[in-house]
Amino acid sequence: MKQPEADLLILGGTVLTLDAKNHIYEEGAVAVAGEHIVAVGPAESVAEQVRAREVLEVSDTVIMPGLVNAHSHVAMTLFRGLADDMPLEAWLDRIWAMELAHATAANVRAGTALALAELIRGGTTTVSDMYWHRDVTTEVALEVGFRLHNGPVFLDFVGPDGIRPENRVQLAREYLERYRDHPLIACSVQAHSTYSVPRALLEQCWALGEEYGVTFVTHAAESAAEVATVQECYGRTPVELLDDLGMLGPRTLLAHGVHLRDDEIALLAERGTSIVHCPESNLKLGSGVARVPDLLGAGVNVGLGTDGAASNNDLDMWGELRTAALLHKGVRQAPTVLPARQVLRMATLGSARALGLHDEIGSLEVGKRADLILVDLDGLHLTPRYDVESHLVYAAGKHDVRSVLVNGRFLMRDGALLTLDEAEVKARVRAARAGIGG
Amino acid sequence: MKQPEADLLILGGTVLTLDAKNHIYEEGAVAVAGEHIVAVGPAESVAEQVRAREVLEVSDTVIMPGLVNAHSHVAMTLFRGLADDMPLEAWLDRIWAMELAHATAANVRAGTALALAELIRGGTTTVSDMYWHRDVTTEVALEVGFRLHNGPVFLDFVGPDGIRPENRVQLAREYLERYRDHPLIACSVQAHSTYSVPRALLEQCWALGEEYGVTFVTHAAESAAEVATVQECYGRTPVELLDDLGMLGPRTLLAHGVHLRDDEIALLAERGTSIVHCPESNLKLGSGVARVPDLLGAGVNVGLGTDGAASNNDLDMWGELRTAALLHKGVRQAPTVLPARQVLRMATLGSARALGLHDEIGSLEVGKRADLILVDLDGLHLTPRYDVESHLVYAAGKHDVRSVLVNGRFLMRDGALLTLDEAEVKARVRAARAGIGG
Repeated sequence: MKQPEADLLILGGTVLTLDAKNHIYEEGAVAVAGEHIVAVGPAESVAEQVRAREVLEVSDTVIMPGLVNAHSHVAMTLFRGLADDMPLEAWLDRIWAMELAHATAANVRAGTALALAELIRGGTTTVSDMYWHRDVTTEVALEVGFRLHNGPVFLDFVGPDGIRPENRVQLAREYLERYRDHPLIACSVQAHSTYSVPRALLEQCWALGEEYGVTFVTHAAESAAEVATVQECYGRTPVELLDDLGMLGPRTLLAHGVHLRDDEIALLAERGTSIVHCPESNLKLGSGVARVPDLLGAGVNVGLGTDGAASNNDLDMWGELRTAALLHKGVRQAPTVLPARQVLRMATLGSARALGLHDEIGSLEVGKRADLILVDLDGLHLTPRYDVESHLVYAAGKHDVRSVLVNGRFLMRDGALLTLDEAEVKARVRAARAGIGG
Repeated sequence: MKQPEADLLILGGTVLTLDAKNHIYEEGAVAVAGEHIVAVGPAESVAEQVRAREVLEVSDTVIMPGLVNAHSHVAMTLFRGLADDMPLEAWLDRIWAMELAHATAANVRAGTALALAELIRGGTTTVSDMYWHRDVTTEVALEVGFRLHNGPVFLDFVGPDGIRPENRVQLAREYLERYRDHPLIACSVQAHSTYSVPRALLEQCWALGEEYGVTFVTHAAESAAEVATVQECYGRTPVELLDDLGMLGPRTLLAHGVHLRDDEIALLAERGTSIVHCPESNLKLGSGVARVPDLLGAGVNVGLGTDGAASNNDLDMWGELRTAALLHKGVRQAPTVLPARQVLRMATLGSARALGLHDEIGSLEVGKRADLILVDLDGLHLTPRYDVESHLVYAAGKHDVRSVLVNGRFLMRDGALLTLDEAEVKARVRAARAGIGG
């Protein structure tokens, strides 16, 4: 029998593949060679097929794909809890003033390191980021070994990163060239939104995305006020406008998508455009409740994200899973919508598809990149156990995540971060916070 | 200067008293003598006034009242995750069949111990319980040193505890006598609901509560179907019926209160009746979203509870705090409703008042019972820090609770449970679960 070489064989846990057929191996195994998964299946048969340098035996543990946070502004951890319980306009004014004054490269470095530490601890293995100083964020992700979906942001003014409009495209190209086909960095182009970015700039952004074949990311239909503003300006909604401009397609990611009509949902399904659901941020900012059961029913791909820590206030995907699973049942008075399995898929393959990474990550399958997590099932709050998927969504949390691999490398093992010094990360953010005031 | 003797002086943390004026001492102290709080204030002045046998110095820590879980069915941890994502009728059928077969005294003992361990770990210091085998639950609480609000449940049939209708009142009296003026057990009388308990039995239950001067607890207006059933049977809603029967008053606790009209809310305010909000259970079972901002606006006292673990699926009050704070903002598209401080009060003094214990617990004040918790603020997800109350509601969680005192006694210290053997607790529930099947 052929014996593939592997670097690591994880043996004995419940393997939740979250693949197309949702294979679950009660006593399973996953083998990793280099950056990729080389075997998944029942423990006995994988152990027979694979010869591994290291064998990690586990029990009372789920082995599953890492969670994919498909929309965030990671360095906003700097402003966590700075502006709560206030009207949206006051929140925007406060945050915007703080960003202009304090979103320096050094602070973004500190905030990003904190965010990645928090994400890793919480079993997230990929994040899609939209923020100032993308080069700094990207450098930190590479230092840490974290998978990042990122790219140039198009806005109509000079922000705290000091990029002048005349240099925008050239710098964007440099980013897109530098990280083309990178094993850890996936590129996007990002237009903040249809209300904040003029049409010419939207078109410039879109064209660049088409040229490089990368995801086009924008905020859309987050609040009723945004939809009204765009309608007043263009005579159509954000989604209608994007479609008129030819910007809806399978490489388009719309963050939020709270205020959508039936015909807009049908249009998104037809175009293959993804929505990233950010339930906690939408609740906290009073934006509303996205029509997720309708989106899924229409066949729209839906991913899950935390949004930034100024409107959440953490980067905990388990909280997002749970909120998504609970919220729609209650609001619709329909306890069968968004069952546990569907929400788990949303946070893994759904998010991966929204980022254009569904062939690389989002499920445990041979040939995919080895982004996976080990979740301890021994906690009081996970006792007793009838259904693993239900436990993961309705009772598990970030503290149950014990180990995290990204691209075949342990970033956390048995609860210890391996590529970040946690005390230093916190000290740097506290120093930054002392300068921020507030 | 007079020097009160104290057993314990906790010094140096941020003291959140949650008293009427919401005093917060950035560098504060709390002193405990026997079962009571004997001093609260700035660290320096308390340290001067109090001579303590033991001084516990803390930093980066919140010292606050323990959370009060004002509605639960604690032994239902046995059925955690057994019946999810199903229609309410199917859920009820499943759970009810399981209870009849498996809610034995031995299983209730195992499930209660697990629940109390989970509650203590999560910084909850009091729980209001409604379940079979109340004597067993009460014994376990006394063994553990946990504060329990409990009492006889009135139902129209013989349940798994085997209490026959002709013995019901006598056994109820024995319970109410035994625990009258007990330092840890607070008594109630409980009628399951107006749809499940015939009028004569409701009246019997109410009369007993009046005789002993204890809280009258019932489920009310949880689901639209329940309201419709009661209306069909009595020609009035559950709240109207209870008022007609003279059963609304300041010693009445209505669990859930999801489906209420404006005039019913006004009536509850007038009568001084408390509502216990259970947002996650209401969402998960598809019951709906309680009108909490309207209840608070009308002056109704609102407490917070988890409900049982079969519909939540944990007993985590931090999740409940967060869900309560987020949910109503989103559903109303109003980011200023239920600010952090208001939600913290709901889970402490609001819950305490619902249980009739507001003179004993729910805030840190001299003369109150020493039920308090220490919450670590050092976590990544609590870094940086601008506002402690915001962090507690929007980012903190059960794993940040380090130490828990109930009635002046440590039940958890530095993360270790002192009155329960966690491994044994889990083993007993797993053994019970093996017998349950499913």
